Amino acid sequence: MQQVDAGVFARRESKVRSYSRSFGAVFERASGSEVFDVDGRRYLDFLAGCSSLNYGHNDPDLKAALLAHVEADTLNHGLDLFSVPKARFLEAMERIVLAPRGLPHLVQFTGPTGTNAVEAAIKLARSVTGRTNVIAFTNGFHGVTAGALAATGNQHHRMGPEQPLGGVTRALYDGYAGPDVDTADLLATLLDDPSSGYDPPAAILLETVQGEGGLAAASPRWLRKIEAIARKHGALLIVDDIQAGCGRTGNFFSFEESGIVPDLVTLSKSLSGYGLPLAVLLVHPDIDEWAPGQHNGTFRGNSTAFVTAAAALEKFWISCSLVDQTKHNAQNVAGRLDEMAALVPGSQLRGRGMFQGLDVGSGDLAGAICRRAFDLGLVVETSGARDQVVKVLAPLTTPAAQLDEGLDILVQATTDAVDTIDLRDGALAAGAPA
Amino acid sequence: MQQVDAGVFARRESKVRSYSRSFGAVFERASGSEVFDVDGRRYLDFLAGCSSLNYGHNDPDLKAALLAHVEADTLNHGLDLFSVPKARFLEAMERIVLAPRGLPHLVQFTGPTGTNAVEAAIKLARSVTGRTNVIAFTNGFHGVTAGALAATGNQHHRMGPEQPLGGVTRALYDGYAGPDVDTADLLATLLDDPSSGYDPPAAILLETVQGEGGLAAASPRWLRKIEAIARKHGALLIVDDIQAGCGRTGNFFSFEESGIVPDLVTLSKSLSGYGLPLAVLLVHPDIDEWAPGQHNGTFRGNSTAFVTAAAALEKFWISCSLVDQTKHNAQNVAGRLDEMAALVPGSQLRGRGMFQGLDVGSGDLAGAICRRAFDLGLVVETSGARDQVVKVLAPLTTPAAQLDEGLDILVQATTDAVDTIDLRDGALAAGAPA
Amino acid sequence: MQQVDAGVFARRESKVRSYSRSFGAVFERASGSEVFDVDGRRYLDFLAGCSSLNYGHNDPDLKAALLAHVEADTLNHGLDLFSVPKARFLEAMERIVLAPRGLPHLVQFTGPTGTNAVEAAIKLARSVTGRTNVIAFTNGFHGVTAGALAATGNQHHRMGPEQPLGGVTRALYDGYAGPDVDTADLLATLLDDPSSGYDPPAAILLETVQGEGGLAAASPRWLRKIEAIARKHGALLIVDDIQAGCGRTGNFFSFEESGIVPDLVTLSKSLSGYGLPLAVLLVHPDIDEWAPGQHNGTFRGNSTAFVTAAAALEKFWISCSLVDQTKHNAQNVAGRLDEMAALVPGSQLRGRGMFQGLDVGSGDLAGAICRRAFDLGLVVETSGARDQVVKVLAPLTTPAAQLDEGLDILVQATTDAVDTIDLRDGALAAGAPA
Amino acid sequence: MQQVDAGVFARRESKVRSYSRSFGAVFERASGSEVFDVDGRRYLDFLAGCSSLNYGHNDPDLKAALLAHVEADTLNHGLDLFSVPKARFLEAMERIVLAPRGLPHLVQFTGPTGTNAVEAAIKLARSVTGRTNVIAFTNGFHGVTAGALAATGNQHHRMGPEQPLGGVTRALYDGYAGPDVDTADLLATLLDDPSSGYDPPAAILLETVQGEGGLAAASPRWLRKIEAIARKHGALLIVDDIQAGCGRTGNFFSFEESGIVPDLVTLSKSLSGYGLPLAVLLVHPDIDEWAPGQHNGTFRGNSTAFVTAAAALEKFWISCSLVDQTKHNAQNVAGRLDEMAALVPGSQLRGRGMFQGLDVGSGDLAGAICRRAFDLGLVVETSGARDQVVKVLAPLTTPAAQLDEGLDILVQATTDAVDTIDLRDGALAAGAPA
Repeated sequence: MQQVDAGVFARRESKVRSYSRSFGAVFERASGSEVFDVDGRRYLDFLAGCSSLNYGHNDPDLKAALLAHVEADTLNHGLDLFSVPKARFLEAMERIVLAPRGLPHLVQFTGPTGTNAVEAAIKLARSVTGRTNVIAFTNGFHGVTAGALAATGNQHHRMGPEQPLGGVTRALYDGYAGPDVDTADLLATLLDDPSSGYDPPAAILLETVQGEGGLAAASPRWLRKIEAIARKHGALLIVDDIQAGCGRTGNFFSFEESGIVPDLVTLSKSLSGYGLPLAVLLVHPDIDEWAPGQHNGTFRGNSTAFVTAAAALEKFWISCSLVDQTKHNAQNVAGRLDEMAALVPGSQLRGRGMFQGLDVGSGDLAGAICRRAFDLGLVVETSGARDQVVKVLAPLTTPAAQLDEGLDILVQATTDAVDTIDLRDGALAAGAPA
Repeated sequence: MQQVDAGVFARRESKVRSYSRSFGAVFERASGSEVFDVDGRRYLDFLAGCSSLNYGHNDPDLKAALLAHVEADTLNHGLDLFSVPKARFLEAMERIVLAPRGLPHLVQFTGPTGTNAVEAAIKLARSVTGRTNVIAFTNGFHGVTAGALAATGNQHHRMGPEQPLGGVTRALYDGYAGPDVDTADLLATLLDDPSSGYDPPAAILLETVQGEGGLAAASPRWLRKIEAIARKHGALLIVDDIQAGCGRTGNFFSFEESGIVPDLVTLSKSLSGYGLPLAVLLVHPDIDEWAPGQHNGTFRGNSTAFVTAAAALEKFWISCSLVDQTKHNAQNVAGRLDEMAALVPGSQLRGRGMFQGLDVGSGDLAGAICRRAFDLGLVVETSGARDQVVKVLAPLTTPAAQLDEGLDILVQATTDAVDTIDLRDGALAAGAPA
Repeated sequence: MQQVDAGVFARRESKVRSYSRSFGAVFERASGSEVFDVDGRRYLDFLAGCSSLNYGHNDPDLKAALLAHVEADTLNHGLDLFSVPKARFLEAMERIVLAPRGLPHLVQFTGPTGTNAVEAAIKLARSVTGRTNVIAFTNGFHGVTAGALAATGNQHHRMGPEQPLGGVTRALYDGYAGPDVDTADLLATLLDDPSSGYDPPAAILLETVQGEGGLAAASPRWLRKIEAIARKHGALLIVDDIQAGCGRTGNFFSFEESGIVPDLVTLSKSLSGYGLPLAVLLVHPDIDEWAPGQHNGTFRGNSTAFVTAAAALEKFWISCSLVDQTKHNAQNVAGRLDEMAALVPGSQLRGRGMFQGLDVGSGDLAGAICRRAFDLGLVVETSGARDQVVKVLAPLTTPAAQLDEGLDILVQATTDAVDTIDLRDGALAAGAPA
Repeated sequence: MQQVDAGVFARRESKVRSYSRSFGAVFERASGSEVFDVDGRRYLDFLAGCSSLNYGHNDPDLKAALLAHVEADTLNHGLDLFSVPKARFLEAMERIVLAPRGLPHLVQFTGPTGTNAVEAAIKLARSVTGRTNVIAFTNGFHGVTAGALAATGNQHHRMGPEQPLGGVTRALYDGYAGPDVDTADLLATLLDDPSSGYDPPAAILLETVQGEGGLAAASPRWLRKIEAIARKHGALLIVDDIQAGCGRTGNFFSFEESGIVPDLVTLSKSLSGYGLPLAVLLVHPDIDEWAPGQHNGTFRGNSTAFVTAAAALEKFWISCSLVDQTKHNAQNVAGRLDEMAALVPGSQLRGRGMFQGLDVGSGDLAGAICRRAFDLGLVVETSGARDQVVKVLAPLTTPAAQLDEGLDILVQATTDAVDTIDLRDGALAAGAPA
């Protein structure tokens, strides 16, 4: 155990800190799906950096590649210069990800954060189409810088009307208006109607599964309809695959199953494979109309991340084993969530792949479940407009025994929390959507 | 020499790439102020990651700290959880940077890019003041995400009027209207006048030296006047010290010499000391009005950067030796720029500290100098509205012999470029400001 | 017949002119529901200044009042000074309109155009609530100045994305998503959901019947739900009664039947009774938070309009006879529209009161009907997103014989147009909404 | 004296009312430069509807034309149909105003308010150029609807940052930065500099004399420089001649003396000659790119105003007598303002033609002068950012004796007010600009 002045957080960290309020330990080491705090306590990590650690913490092969890179004094910061690590990453992206899927897309290195990739996508779409309007969806989350924030649904991050955000029109996500309303057809009607107030869009921007928005998952059919609408109206289709991509739903891209081909795809989070900052925008070559340097950023050449990202592609995406394992694990998760659902009347499964959770109808209950799970040694978080979804984001590589262990804890935590919170007193009803 | 498929850049990288157009080599290794390409060719690096490598490439002590961190499986990705590397970084910031300067500021971990720190600063200032307007200056550069971009002067990055940017009013930087106009007094008049069209500002946002804006440097007196204007009008003062901070002008913060105390300070670039993505917003405790998670981002807990950042503070900022060396080197640079100036009629020195350059009056000439310098083994870039300033951004730690070697190359390149470009034919006049 | 240089229109009027393209005559005299062109040709006027002439052209009693006013050199232009004509108008509004309906509202004299009253309403709502967002509806029309235009659905008037419009979120009007979707419930869900992307609104702005939007009419139940939503979310309810008010739907205000009490009501068009420019905003006294002169305009004291407006209130709104006549005439119109509907497969009645029309499913057909009607001596126009609704806006005071005469022409024109346009060739289907 | 219920204003008029706070009488009759209240008290009117009554109240010839129009049941409300009154007005504009000055401009009938004409001008400029940015000036006033308001400098009318206004960049008006700074040259530098933050403008929008902005008058040389800047940068030049036009500065247009030819000119206020609502946008035929109805409004065919406007052009603009009289009267006014200036240390003459005033350095003093003048039977108002300018807006047609009488009152009121307000106690200094 290392010596650490834990009081410095209270003295010197801004109140904006967030996860440390739910999980108050000071973490020290991590490996695979396990993390350890300074007191040596072990936790299973089913938060996984909000899907930034799909391959677990500090994978040994990625670690070896990173150590070799640092040892060799390889260029570590390279702006957007040509470098050996960048060449290797690009080559791996081409060979392992893009070419096998028939994707002709180019790779744009934006600033190494997801929000920056979204900003670049929106900016390029507006420039290419000469239009301003971007269609984004209810409960979408795309980041907190001003351009991305305009597309994000969450009021909490907008901080009131004084932030000038603009150029986004909101549409209803798949299922938002209930099972009887086809919201893709509704969007088609709105865009066909020259007086609907929905201006011709530069882009339609969506997540296939809404990671922050409560794990709502769009159906393949809905995605194909949205793609057709985008094509009909001359809009670009942007898939924000920052949280759902890199295998979280099974395939590398979350949209593969649906067969759509987005014009622009954002990737980040698990792309580096080691939790290092990296983000790219995949750009269809037909619309790569950037002038040199038109979108830039100091850290778009983060070599450490290139090294681990290339190593992750080589290790996990040459064969189908990870995809198969994810399918298998996802069934396991679904089964245990069903168990939990039986404990919470009215609760509903959300999501797909290893991107599943349980909507327990109340942020209070979901919070109580996660707090209890943490007591029992499991890091797991909520999601959704009212934090009403318990979200299971275990690393894809979690060994079967640890997955079972974590899910056992989750079921136990649900049992305990349900006992504590009186479900009959209307607490759930009060917290539930109208 | 490693094997690398250099053709992948042409095949798969977006046209947005920029520096690789000026410096076409594929870089492999780097150490201190030297970089080497895949053919083993050596270059001196006076670009230094646009001031992200103030301590040079791959400093051995920072490297050792990074290797130890990776070897130990220390938590590498931590969202905004409490972690040992974050505690150590915060403690070092407090002990070495903030406390000695009497700064009570808290540290906010924004997304690890400068533009994200600027976005957070603007967002917080608007929330605290309940106002929208942010005063930014001619030739300011603050990033390319939508909120930061609104404050950035450069049209190139705005990509036309179709990007909805708002809430920024432009003011004249120190010296912009010539030596006879006190632009701080002018701003005071505009803000005192209820019909000037300059609404009461949430913040005044400035760089003390404009890194992308041609190395214009504000005088301490002007900075103090601007601070007084901000106080009088209830606006927050934001210093964007992303490029000028971390010792580039001598002291750790570029504003220390002037005596002003900003409410908000953005830091990034050289903060990690190793070129790793890191950005923070220093927030005066009186205005730390964030709700938990109100500004967030996946990579705000980039442990690798915390480790090297803490090591850099310990190595370079406990004593005054780096500040002294910077002063000494800055005099050296100024002297050699004077030599260059003698070769280019009408040229002018810009900047201060190790943040100096020569305005040669023409982007064509400045570009020719930099191209010639690259031929001679020196990486150096231009800056300014018309790329008319040759900007010398050598690492602060550059050994005397290498500094001399690089400056010799620069003088030689200037001589060669001036011979090539006929100064009498009006090329300069055509490129010069009105 | 007067001498007139009709060529001056071609020489000197902007191409923006619109109605004169459909009705190319040069009009000279008008009286009641009849207009006459310079060649002495008579037309029935079922356009009625787009509902600005609810009492017909040049009503003799209003004319007498206007002549007396002009003869007496009464103050004619009074900015917003106290004047005798303004006092008389205000007193009549209080005694005849507001007090009998229990409305405590104050009268704000905005600039004398509907769009200006809408701008004032939005501005006040934002100031009172401290919020920016205004909810407006699909196919709403509220004017073409920038603030009002943001709320208007029609792309044609927006002229592309380069106009910076902001602060409006679009919601679905009653019936927009078909008979099975309760769009008020949907709006309630969106506003209850903190991540829907629908920010807390300053106001909900609506027309009870969408005059330009194809005569969609909201049900009283839907209006009451919207009022309840506004109350729940602390938003002001603004009814834009510019086209639907002043008796067009029967009662003075179009919302009386529903029982809702808006916070803000815009009135214009028929308010002066004589086609003279006049607009007011009715402001609930609880929210009359204007500072003096905060919204202003040169012509907000247009005395000629005050005089005719007061005379119109005295003549038409002391008794119920106009309301009764409107109900009777409306049944007549509905019956004849049914006749027309029988001629056009799939056509549908729209609107209510003397604000009815027939959606013939195609702008081409509706245009052909109106052109043919004009040939036959009837001025009547289309409405709707695709100009697919033939809109009957006869003066409320139209004598029975003239109403019949006009409706006969309309039925004949429909017969003729249907014969001309081959309904089987898909022309209608092509023009119809998806 | 008529019976009038003056209490209705307190009961039923919104607090937004403004002029009636300074001049609390209830006005009844008016003729030429005289107005009379309900108690029969006579006032001279040197406010003249804020320059809407350049030919005085109720001119007998205009009155006769208006009476004849009403008597004859001429079409009174005509949307934008062709009508006899519109043809006559257009023909008079062409023959008397446009053709003699060699202006090829077309006439666009916008809504009958100045702000609407400004909105149309901005909208068209953006559409024609494909750019958003409009350059407007310090202390400019262009109306209070959202698009026009963005260009207006006055904070009072903006009502805080919650109104989304955008697309305007503020520049310094002639003389704003003192006599030594050429603000046209400064604007040229800013627009030539691609990093100044001043985006390429769609239009430059200005008043030649700032009516609400304290009667600052631009020099002909400055205007010509601005015109040249607009041409160089592909921006349209919009002159807002709403208050300064129609002879207020001498010639019909305020810009004639400078020789510039704007692309777009807004006219309103005195255009109808009788205080009736009318506004037009003069559009150079090269840029008349409107689609039919793209900018519209119910009252753009206000026949009563067409009739008096045509009569006014015939009466006042066939010969040079009004121009000559204005020059003569302006000298008279200037002389008497000099007298006043001698009473107020540091005061300064502003404006030109019959658009002059005295900047007394303090809104308190200027207000006191106007209040005292009203006691003495003169209606006169203040102007400027701090209401520090006493603005003399007598009708151009004011008989010499009445002009002298009014100016005598003004001098007397100044003498009285100066006695009351102790000039030595710093009141002036406190109110004066920095």
